[in-house]
Amino acid sequence: MRQIYVIGIGAGDPDQLTLQAVKALNRVDVFFLLDKGEAKADLIGLRHAILAEHIAEGRQYRLVEARDPDRDRTAGGADYSPAVGDWRSRRADIYERMITDELGEDQVGAFLVWGDPALYDSTLGILDEILARGTVGFEHEVIPGISSVSALLAKHRTGLNRVARPVQITTGRRLAEAWPEGVDDVVVMLDGHQSFRHYLAEDPVIHWGAYVGTADEILVSGRLSEVADRIVELRAEARARKGWIMDTYLLRRDTSRD
Amino acid sequence: MRQIYVIGIGAGDPDQLTLQAVKALNRVDVFFLLDKGEAKADLIGLRHAILAEHIAEGRQYRLVEARDPDRDRTAGGADYSPAVGDWRSRRADIYERMITDELGEDQVGAFLVWGDPALYDSTLGILDEILARGTVGFEHEVIPGISSVSALLAKHRTGLNRVARPVQITTGRRLAEAWPEGVDDVVVMLDGHQSFRHYLAEDPVIHWGAYVGTADEILVSGRLSEVADRIVELRAEARARKGWIMDTYLLRRDTSRD
Repeated sequence: MRQIYVIGIGAGDPDQLTLQAVKALNRVDVFFLLDKGEAKADLIGLRHAILAEHIAEGRQYRLVEARDPDRDRTAGGADYSPAVGDWRSRRADIYERMITDELGEDQVGAFLVWGDPALYDSTLGILDEILARGTVGFEHEVIPGISSVSALLAKHRTGLNRVARPVQITTGRRLAEAWPEGVDDVVVMLDGHQSFRHYLAEDPVIHWGAYVGTADEILVSGRLSEVADRIVELRAEARARKGWIMDTYLLRRDTSRD
Repeated sequence: MRQIYVIGIGAGDPDQLTLQAVKALNRVDVFFLLDKGEAKADLIGLRHAILAEHIAEGRQYRLVEARDPDRDRTAGGADYSPAVGDWRSRRADIYERMITDELGEDQVGAFLVWGDPALYDSTLGILDEILARGTVGFEHEVIPGISSVSALLAKHRTGLNRVARPVQITTGRRLAEAWPEGVDDVVVMLDGHQSFRHYLAEDPVIHWGAYVGTADEILVSGRLSEVADRIVELRAEARARKGWIMDTYLLRRDTSRD
């Protein structure tokens, strides 16, 4: 039976690999790497560096690289989920072909996932889709990783939640529509539009970070009214310079004890 | 200046330590360990095993152990937050004394935190409280860890969120009051009362786990109506046998695309 590891490799700092991940890397015959285009060459380079550093001398492995399908990022609003679904199916086609053609029946393959495979990553959903098609069989195992959220909060030395209180993790798109009901602490992922700007009047504290754990790391904390402009500026400058950006933030609204 | 590391050591599997955590362990002069009573002797033992395994031969370090203050667990409802606040202040007294008395001006101390220091852990809040008192100065750094949530979801090979959708992390106490507004995916921590039983009629899927990553690990997944009784039974049996339990779960409600 083919075996596939989905390995969380942390949020950018190679030292965020777990010992479990290092052991798993050393059992892999074929690494499947998705090239997300020129802009993310940095990330591909970092993956190569991780393999070079942590795989034991003399251990044989192969890299299989494929081009990630382009995603229609112009679709917004009601079109968003179908666009993602379609993109995911095309990605599943590519993964299915790589597994079928490049992984022997008794071999171990692996996908390396930034952060934690459980958090806003499509790999597990895609593997489920392939298994549901029934065209190729495999067993799979997930190695959890340090998520971009954990990495961000560690740098800001703060918690995700306040004592006995809930926290919501959501997308920039949803935050732009409304502040989530029933929570005062919100983590925002995938925000290409700096949706925090909708909440200047409420003036929560923001803990923001980009490229956390890498040499390009940028961190900003403070009252939103005082730091929002700086974040927008830093973000635009960094994105222009590097061609891509990965950023995340926590918004923490004042609350009276309930 | 005194230096303190708050080190996330993962959810129970010693291989979930990150390389960053291992490096940090090897810079520590004094480890502060809190004894939470007989029932949690297993956890203290696991911490000792981690130190024994990962600290380099010949490296000198000291362990300082203190008894955790008893928490008034009978306080419920409106009394809950004050009870926690009072407990936290007493814990801050203990931490402050340990840092002042046991850590030299130029030494490095560390607290080892299960899971990730950012998620439902009091250490960072307590250190902030001590710094606010101004009686002892120190610098501190947080090393993120694999949270119990990441570990649980990895074992169940599922994500925290569905595509482009939000997820809420909350407590058993809050879930018992109401299903959180605006989300169909809910992670529940600190649930001593199996509050999922309030939602049998809605019948979400549950991914439950206890002692995840350890030899005692128990995992159950399925429609709540089909597995709730088994979880309640397994949980009671394990808790009676071991004297303590750490469990977490994800509830995933059916949703039409919105």
